[in-house]
Amino acid sequence: MALDRVAAIVVAAGSGTRLRASAPKALVRVGGKPLLLWAVEALTVGGVTELVVAAAAERIADFTQVLASQPVPARVVAGGASRGDSVRNALAALNATAAPPDVVLVHDAARPLVPPEVVARVIAAVQDGDVAVVPVIPVTDTVRQLAASGSTVVDRSILRAVQTPQGFRRDVLTAAYAAPAFANSTAVTDDATLVERLGYAVRLVEGSPSAMKVTTPHDLVMVSAMLEV
Amino acid sequence: MALDRVAAIVVAAGSGTRLRASAPKALVRVGGKPLLLWAVEALTVGGVTELVVAAAAERIADFTQVLASQPVPARVVAGGASRGDSVRNALAALNATAAPPDVVLVHDAARPLVPPEVVARVIAAVQDGDVAVVPVIPVTDTVRQLAASGSTVVDRSILRAVQTPQGFRRDVLTAAYAAPAFANSTAVTDDATLVERLGYAVRLVEGSPSAMKVTTPHDLVMVSAMLEV
Repeated sequence: MALDRVAAIVVAAGSGTRLRASAPKALVRVGGKPLLLWAVEALTVGGVTELVVAAAAERIADFTQVLASQPVPARVVAGGASRGDSVRNALAALNATAAPPDVVLVHDAARPLVPPEVVARVIAAVQDGDVAVVPVIPVTDTVRQLAASGSTVVDRSILRAVQTPQGFRRDVLTAAYAAPAFANSTAVTDDATLVERLGYAVRLVEGSPSAMKVTTPHDLVMVSAMLEV
Repeated sequence: MALDRVAAIVVAAGSGTRLRASAPKALVRVGGKPLLLWAVEALTVGGVTELVVAAAAERIADFTQVLASQPVPARVVAGGASRGDSVRNALAALNATAAPPDVVLVHDAARPLVPPEVVARVIAAVQDGDVAVVPVIPVTDTVRQLAASGSTVVDRSILRAVQTPQGFRRDVLTAAYAAPAFANSTAVTDDATLVERLGYAVRLVEGSPSAMKVTTPHDLVMVSAMLEV
């Protein structure tokens, strides 16, 4: 198998509404360049060798132009109505190529500052034989769980917050998205969960607080600050 | 009952080790003043009328000097080996006064930017009859739970991250800390959990992402950035 080549699907179809931005979220600039390019740089330094970016259909030209400035082969495809649809479209485009790599990462463009070593760790785990790999960090807050009446404290020592990029064997991720039972993947926020439902084990590796997701204007300020450290 | 007066216990005995600071964490300056004073300002604007601050015994003079610049009656007491011991000591000092208020908040000095409206919401809930009140925010990450073998995804829609200040009827919090079963409160990170074990219901109110806890140098950068927005 072609385990030395690694494709990354970058989900970048978010509108930026919650960010109160006029541009799509992935094109919002911070520290002099779009979130998308920060994410792509982390991925390629970490070992990704080609990219498929899922963007809003009407912004494909803009995204293609932005990606022209980075060195890795990249295609832009139209995203779907949901995150799951975007991944499905990107995966279909990847599978339609002559010789797609057997390792695929799925990453959110909204996590621009994932450290390259986290990317490398995810890739290495897939190359070593794990079919689904997710980076996680400990949960530091006390967590309560809502119940029918009131709420109860959860043992946070056994909780882990899930990040991206998640890494997969391409055939396994393709099978997960092709399964009829998962045709409606609207509610899926996490690709590993789909793979897991096929019966595969999900391997956890160490993520990083830097891989935080940018959702609100407040998050964008944090990311700007982190770039200045 | 004296529900119109509200005491806050501020836990400020943290060493700052993880922050790589030479001063106690609560005295680390950001935006021109110590974390402690940011926290105290939020509490007093939100409705707190008196303070008991638990600090490392050898720094009581430093803390007393810092608190002299703010307008609310404040005492500094020696904290204990654990967070629970610090709360217990501060509560004992409060209970030893002639006429302590019947509403007590417990707040971490390491949450300097809690919005005053969150403080006011917690106070109002206790004044309205709830005996234990905690501010919470939704959990935005996908969360997995470690199992004996592997891990499983948790339904995050029913999870809430717990913040401070937490608000209590003073008699109920005192009873919780006095109960022999809880004499060893080392493992307790959350005062509401102790009260809950006595059989009382815990009321959840809306917290804020701004009430994040400062633990690492990275968190301190975020707080600095938030002050500049």
